[in-house]
Amino acid sequence: MTSTNTPPPARPLATRKADALLRLTTDVDAWVSTASTDGAPYLVPLSFIWTGETFFLSTASRNPTSLNLQANPHLHLAIGGTRDVLLVTGTAQRFTPTQEQGDTFADKTGFDPRTLKATYPFFEVTPVRIQSWREANELKGRDLMLDGTWLV
Amino acid sequence: MTSTNTPPPARPLATRKADALLRLTTDVDAWVSTASTDGAPYLVPLSFIWTGETFFLSTASRNPTSLNLQANPHLHLAIGGTRDVLLVTGTAQRFTPTQEQGDTFADKTGFDPRTLKATYPFFEVTPVRIQSWREANELKGRDLMLDGTWLV
Repeated sequence: MTSTNTPPPARPLATRKADALLRLTTDVDAWVSTASTDGAPYLVPLSFIWTGETFFLSTASRNPTSLNLQANPHLHLAIGGTRDVLLVTGTAQRFTPTQEQGDTFADKTGFDPRTLKATYPFFEVTPVRIQSWREANELKGRDLMLDGTWLV
Repeated sequence: MTSTNTPPPARPLATRKADALLRLTTDVDAWVSTASTDGAPYLVPLSFIWTGETFFLSTASRNPTSLNLQANPHLHLAIGGTRDVLLVTGTAQRFTPTQEQGDTFADKTGFDPRTLKATYPFFEVTPVRIQSWREANELKGRDLMLDGTWLV
């Protein structure tokens, strides 16, 4: 996480939040890190939408991510690159989207789980902590949200 | 993981492996997904080197990744973007690098854990499975390595 080049100055918190909100709206995929109840980690990219308060995502019911989340709701989402990180700690709950929510998901992601033969449950992810940093000089002050509350 | 645009044709396995080996040599950071023994997932980007057979990485001894790996060696590494994925399933073991190994790590990553005040243990990651895909049309045939053996 250290660059051989000098990074730009650390962004103030308000700028990081603005950058984060833009990314939550425009990015399509997140790395989704889950674990089984006995501690086997699993990592996979999935499409998401951000509703302004929570994330929606969907993955096949037989996939490890889906099985993990139904037994152990804790997860991490990473959005962006390894040198422009948005890291979300949260919990996921399976839910059935309304017609409008499903349409919004399909419109943004180009992926409509409702049309597939296999069962693709939706999960709503409630963020508890959101961190944002680019290079090592932004590790200080990286918290944008703590205990579910935006700090700015 | 589905694009609204038509993706290019799926790459043959040999091409995927060549692309993967290039990425293992040139990319600096990986997403590292670990879990505590009681199933709390953790995700963070870390710098790595690929030795040709294993990965080396390093993180502060107090960080969750370090604590997790010392109790539960299973991890996933993701290298590349969410639409050009290299996904590694493996196990990590703490080790002390030789002078030459430490120098190689510092030269590539620009990050020399040996010079820091805090303790930064090194871990060697042995891959068991390596998968590679770009878009949904490459999910079939995504395995490059299974049970520690390259398939091509």
